[in-house]
Amino acid sequence: MKIVIVGLGVIGGSYALALKNCGYNDVYGIDTDVSALNIAENKGIIKKGFTDGKEILNHCDLVILSIYPDSVVKFLTKNKAFFKSGAVLTDTTGIKVSLVSNIEKILRDDIEFVFGHPMAGREKKGLAYADSKVFKGANYIITPTNRTSSNAINIVEKLALDIGFKRVTKVHPKEHDALIAFTSQLPHIIAVALINSDDEKYETGKFIGDSYRELTRISNINGELWTELFLNNKENLLKSIDNFEKQLTLLKNGLIENDKNLLMNLFRESSIRREKLE
Amino acid sequence: MKIVIVGLGVIGGSYALALKNCGYNDVYGIDTDVSALNIAENKGIIKKGFTDGKEILNHCDLVILSIYPDSVVKFLTKNKAFFKSGAVLTDTTGIKVSLVSNIEKILRDDIEFVFGHPMAGREKKGLAYADSKVFKGANYIITPTNRTSSNAINIVEKLALDIGFKRVTKVHPKEHDALIAFTSQLPHIIAVALINSDDEKYETGKFIGDSYRELTRISNINGELWTELFLNNKENLLKSIDNFEKQLTLLKNGLIENDKNLLMNLFRESSIRREKLE
Repeated sequence: MKIVIVGLGVIGGSYALALKNCGYNDVYGIDTDVSALNIAENKGIIKKGFTDGKEILNHCDLVILSIYPDSVVKFLTKNKAFFKSGAVLTDTTGIKVSLVSNIEKILRDDIEFVFGHPMAGREKKGLAYADSKVFKGANYIITPTNRTSSNAINIVEKLALDIGFKRVTKVHPKEHDALIAFTSQLPHIIAVALINSDDEKYETGKFIGDSYRELTRISNINGELWTELFLNNKENLLKSIDNFEKQLTLLKNGLIENDKNLLMNLFRESSIRREKLE
Repeated sequence: MKIVIVGLGVIGGSYALALKNCGYNDVYGIDTDVSALNIAENKGIIKKGFTDGKEILNHCDLVILSIYPDSVVKFLTKNKAFFKSGAVLTDTTGIKVSLVSNIEKILRDDIEFVFGHPMAGREKKGLAYADSKVFKGANYIITPTNRTSSNAINIVEKLALDIGFKRVTKVHPKEHDALIAFTSQLPHIIAVALINSDDEKYETGKFIGDSYRELTRISNINGELWTELFLNNKENLLKSIDNFEKQLTLLKNGLIENDKNLLMNLFRESSIRREKLE
């Protein structure tokens, strides 16, 4: 199987590394950044790099699009004529409803698109931060549509398991976006609000433990990408923020009222939930 | 130097392990839980265990109180007569103003108390989760008072660096409690609110990445301990929650108004802050 990765950033680069590690060796790269292509070639994680799709796409059975959601649509429009008949395309983006709708409008009948979301990332961007370990033990989500064949799904699912994901779950794109607003987007919003609420009177770094480190890691955020993801999933995200604010208010009231029982109950509930999480 | 650790839970046990690792071998333990004492003796991380202070305290130069804040006061009251003259006592609790005031009222003139806060912990409790690595590279805070001699401070500071803390910072107890409300207590409140806001329609564990894992780790919380810590530092904590809520509202408004510029600015600010954090 000939594979091409579109976008050799932190995620595309991690795919290239992980594919190489598990024996896929017919892997190519497309990126507008020539230096990223050169580095990837020199590292031996792609056979050859291309700055556009014209020459390579019609040879590839699987196309992994690890670029921003809007760029996925643009890439498909621009390269529509070049895909190999029967090719399977998959993406790595964090929102699905708007993407599915935009893609399926323009998808050629003889190619397949399996919408995928590897739930693994890094707060840094660029090939330099790529790391095959990022996928180890992580969750992978596929959002099939009426148009997706089980054969195409199987190809993407097998690849995900091969490169280290621990489980592949299939849900409707709508469910995906509602779930992800809570499990991924809300944590990013919280992390940003937390670190931005620091009054910076002192050198905060001297007074932190792992809790602050962990809760703020993702506040170092790729603003361009996440602004796009958030605004394309606004209703779900606002609902998740509201639910979170309600719980915060409960805790605040427990503090204001010195209500030990209420607080203890909320902490018991959160502990039980965390214990059974994975 | 003869050292006794009061309370062989996750923190006291980690002290015992870390002390052993760096060559302190005249270390004793006090705990009401005989099985914890037996385990610690068998592991060779304490020389001998005691269920109260009567017999051992008057031999010890350094007393590490790794018990809840209220228990520190109770232990000192109960064992007032037994401390060795000139002994240095130190605690490991996460709040200082109320503790300092309660302790200094009852402290014997011929013993010293260095109020300390090792900013390292585990969400689990009990000796079974003790781990000397928890201190490696962590922050240690000392809150000197008018009564604390520099000699006593030096002893506690040296010990902290010996067992792996990367830096010891001294601040006034009031500053400590204001800082810690933000860097430690607020993250715990946020983690609890986040996991409790899950509507649990789906198996959340299948749809999470590292961000959700990290932001909820500390929602598995020792409710008894943290309720005490929160209520004893209520004003500071409520102020930190308010500041956080203001930032959350900013982000929410950016989403509602589709204000890309505002969002990008907030993400740029959070990224800069996180980069320079440590």
